[in-house]
Amino acid sequence: MSILAALMLLQAQAAPTPPPEPPTPGSIVAAAPRSEWRAISPRDLLVIDLAPKGRAARRVVIQLVPAPFALGWTANIRTLAAAHWWDGTAVVRVQDNYVVQWGDPTEKKPLPAGIATVPERAYLTPLDTVAEARSPIEARDLPETRSRAKWLSDIAIGGTVTKAAREGWHERDSYAEWVEVIDGWPIATDDKNAWMPHCYGMVGVGRNLSPDTGSGAELYTVIGQAPRHLDRNIAIVGRVIAGMEHLSSLARGTGDLGFYKTPGERTPIVRARLASELPAAERPAFEMLATDSETFARYVAARANRRDSFFNVPAGGVDICNLPVPIRPAK
Amino acid sequence: MSILAALMLLQAQAAPTPPPEPPTPGSIVAAAPRSEWRAISPRDLLVIDLAPKGRAARRVVIQLVPAPFALGWTANIRTLAAAHWWDGTAVVRVQDNYVVQWGDPTEKKPLPAGIATVPERAYLTPLDTVAEARSPIEARDLPETRSRAKWLSDIAIGGTVTKAAREGWHERDSYAEWVEVIDGWPIATDDKNAWMPHCYGMVGVGRNLSPDTGSGAELYTVIGQAPRHLDRNIAIVGRVIAGMEHLSSLARGTGDLGFYKTPGERTPIVRARLASELPAAERPAFEMLATDSETFARYVAARANRRDSFFNVPAGGVDICNLPVPIRPAK
Repeated sequence: MSILAALMLLQAQAAPTPPPEPPTPGSIVAAAPRSEWRAISPRDLLVIDLAPKGRAARRVVIQLVPAPFALGWTANIRTLAAAHWWDGTAVVRVQDNYVVQWGDPTEKKPLPAGIATVPERAYLTPLDTVAEARSPIEARDLPETRSRAKWLSDIAIGGTVTKAAREGWHERDSYAEWVEVIDGWPIATDDKNAWMPHCYGMVGVGRNLSPDTGSGAELYTVIGQAPRHLDRNIAIVGRVIAGMEHLSSLARGTGDLGFYKTPGERTPIVRARLASELPAAERPAFEMLATDSETFARYVAARANRRDSFFNVPAGGVDICNLPVPIRPAK
Repeated sequence: MSILAALMLLQAQAAPTPPPEPPTPGSIVAAAPRSEWRAISPRDLLVIDLAPKGRAARRVVIQLVPAPFALGWTANIRTLAAAHWWDGTAVVRVQDNYVVQWGDPTEKKPLPAGIATVPERAYLTPLDTVAEARSPIEARDLPETRSRAKWLSDIAIGGTVTKAAREGWHERDSYAEWVEVIDGWPIATDDKNAWMPHCYGMVGVGRNLSPDTGSGAELYTVIGQAPRHLDRNIAIVGRVIAGMEHLSSLARGTGDLGFYKTPGERTPIVRARLASELPAAERPAFEMLATDSETFARYVAARANRRDSFFNVPAGGVDICNLPVPIRPAK
């Protein structure tokens, strides 16, 4: 036997190299090039410092929704933060599998000057204004009627995810005709309007009965299965991007709707500021994966069809609320 | 003016009677007649007593899934409870927006005799066996192929919800061809098989990589948005019907996958028993709303289309995981 033949035999008898492990959503995101990450402006971050638990700090960071969504309420929230209105307020309500809510327990604290009353129609954002906010797409290119949603989808995440679309994942939503991720945010639409869905960690504006729409002073975040029946009925103004565990793990309130029965059960809010108004040394910084990137398209496909070793059957779809946009502290 | 005319005028001038408030899902269930509630057998309840928090008891009650679902695993769980296997184990992992998991922290505690290894095919339950388990439907009545799922739906909740079906609510699931509530449980199907979805509070069997399917000794429950990509990849064996807040509000673990880094962070499990094996005085009792009842059909319709004062826009649909089956302590 020649040396070459012997080597070939040896190679054939050696344990076969295991096939490479298919990527996970996490490994796909970890491999994203630097160029696909986008800094989040400190003007769009609301930083809430809860009272420490023992010696442990509890900081919650909320990213405000971008234009053209919920502009009236986010303007109010910037005003409230600048006025230090939340300092000394508290988390007043924790209802399991629903929401954590914070604000003024007395409901009597005066609001600062400049708080606008936002009309109910602002729960919906016309599709053409969503398109106008996206450069370089021009509004005059908008096709008519129902296909707008499809068209928005096409511009949003491009060709790669069209494969996922063919597999049906984003045509099967119980609460909207179309759902999509656009400019870093989950969006639901009908044929005329867009709105943001009540996913885990999304932040909404507490309100009384219609026609009240809430000022933005009373806020809540979702801590369970997405209560999507609230979509289009309450304004979504942001999402928790850090410190969610400080809210989701709070003791549930035992009063009606999860309100705490006694003041001592509430978690005090020490301070709430826009990150841009914090001293530079205390200012958190985050970045998010561009959702028009190649990596995000691969991430969506992997969330919809897990093929790594743990999984036997890929789902073949993914709920819009089971598709969090990757966000991380900026280096 | 006649007295009659005066009375009529008075009536006309009085403040108009406000229209009756449309019912809420809660008010619909509260009005259900006694005859629509079904006792849950104490043989199907796993009662877990966590170590008290201060002086407050922490009891979690899990209802095991009915036949023909997950029979091998639920048999193991009954064996483990009878052997008092969980006594002295602990909650070892809390991952935000995902799961709380409990079991033996050492992973070395021997299992009792009689624990079966369940094959992976048991993740799926053939539709005809679901039908056989339902009296008085006979399996020979099953139509062929894809329409089985539709047929199961028809027998499950009858004519009233057909209206909801026409509105599209249960045809729009990202993770299954069909979803339905049958015999008190959420069910997902393709054209041949059924499985239970990973909704909030559902309990699953921790496992290692395939072909391991888990014994049932390591269990978890869902504490966030339904991780439906786990459907068909892990056995669902029950749901938390009381005390969920004792699990969902636990501090999140800071290790990989939410495992606690130190033993002191774990929550001890003092005792776990089937309710049927507890002394009568300590035995909890629960009942669930019959899901083939008129009330349940009205409840589904109201969950899909809220019309009470708080809501401006009814959703027009409802996710299978946003449709919890009403369960309450039995009187």
